[in-house]
Amino acid sequence: MLGLKTATNDEWIAVAAQNLDQILIDHAHCEKKAAANGMAMISRYPDREMLVRAMIELIKEETEHFEFIYEEIRRRDLTLTRDRGDRYVQELSKHINKNEPLRMLDFLLTAALIEARSCERFSLLSKCDDVPADLRKLYHDLMASEAGHYRAFTDIAREFFPKEQVKARLEELLDIEAEIVRGLPNEATMHG
Amino acid sequence: MLGLKTATNDEWIAVAAQNLDQILIDHAHCEKKAAANGMAMISRYPDREMLVRAMIELIKEETEHFEFIYEEIRRRDLTLTRDRGDRYVQELSKHINKNEPLRMLDFLLTAALIEARSCERFSLLSKCDDVPADLRKLYHDLMASEAGHYRAFTDIAREFFPKEQVKARLEELLDIEAEIVRGLPNEATMHG
Repeated sequence: MLGLKTATNDEWIAVAAQNLDQILIDHAHCEKKAAANGMAMISRYPDREMLVRAMIELIKEETEHFEFIYEEIRRRDLTLTRDRGDRYVQELSKHINKNEPLRMLDFLLTAALIEARSCERFSLLSKCDDVPADLRKLYHDLMASEAGHYRAFTDIAREFFPKEQVKARLEELLDIEAEIVRGLPNEATMHG
Repeated sequence: MLGLKTATNDEWIAVAAQNLDQILIDHAHCEKKAAANGMAMISRYPDREMLVRAMIELIKEETEHFEFIYEEIRRRDLTLTRDRGDRYVQELSKHINKNEPLRMLDFLLTAALIEARSCERFSLLSKCDDVPADLRKLYHDLMASEAGHYRAFTDIAREFFPKEQVKARLEELLDIEAEIVRGLPNEATMHG
C-alpha cells in the first residue's frame, strides 16, 4: 500500500483487535500530533506558500479527526489518558537529515510514510472480523484521508525538490521504514 | 479591559501603525502559537473533558484566524517570515508555578491574560486613525473572539479550582502582567 515495503505483522492486528480501547486513545494522540506537526512545518518553512496552504488544510482535518476520535472515546465512556509516545515515529525521525535543504525533504517524506503506514493499519482494522462493525466503518472512513495526506506531503516534496531526488530518497526511507516496522513489538498502539 | 491593570503605552500604537506589515506577520505567528498551546493543554490534561472540548474549539478558531491573517499577508504580497519569538509571553510564562495543581491554574490564567492583552491591542489598532479602514475592520472583527477565549480559559479555571482561588491568583497575575507590559520596548510586534 502506497509503496510500503513490508506488510504489518498478523500479530499486531490480533493484539489491536483485542485492545480497541487502547488503540482509540493512542489514535486520538496520533491525530493531535499530526496537527501539531503541520504547525511545526509552518514554523520551519513559513515562506513556502504551497507548503503553508497545504499544512493549514492538514491542521484543520487532523483537528477534526482528533475531535471525531475523542467523541468515540467518550461515547464508549473511556477517558483520554496521557500520550505514551510513539516509538515508530521516534525511530523514523532519527533518519531525518540534520542539514537543510535535505532536512526539509526528509521531514516531508517521513510525514508521508507515517500517513501511509497509518492508512495500511486503518485498512487492516477495517477488514478485521474481530473489530465491531461501527469501528470498522470508522477506520474505513479515515483511510482515504490518510492517503490524501500521503499525497499532500509527496506533492510538496516534488514542488520544492527535483522529482528524481524525491523518488530516490523516498526509496531509501521506504527501506528504513520497513526495517523499523519489522522490529516493532506488536503493541496495542496505532504504530505498535 | 478584561481586568487588565495597565493600558498599552501610546508609543506602541504609534510604532505598530507605522509597521503594519510586521504586525501582520507577528500576528499570524501569535494565532498559530495559540492553536499550538491548545494542543499542549490537551496533552497535559487529557482527562479533563471540559478542558479538552474547549481546547478543540480554540484550536479550530485559532487555525481559522491564522489562515485569515495569512491570506491578508499574501493579499499584500508579503512573505511570512520566521517567528522571532514573543518576549511578553516568555516573561509571563516564567511566573507559571512548576508544581501541579497550581501549574494547571497558571497555564489557564496566563493564557487568559494573553488573550485579554491581545484583545486590548486589537481594540487600539481598530480605533487608530493611522491604520487603513480594511485593517481596522479586521482587528475589530477579531476582538470578540479574543474576549471569548479569555472567558473560555477563566471558565475552565473556575470549573477545576475554587472560585476564590481563581480570583486571588488572577489578581496576582494581573499585577505581574501589568509590570511586564510597562517594561516592554514598544516594538512592532503584537505584544511588543
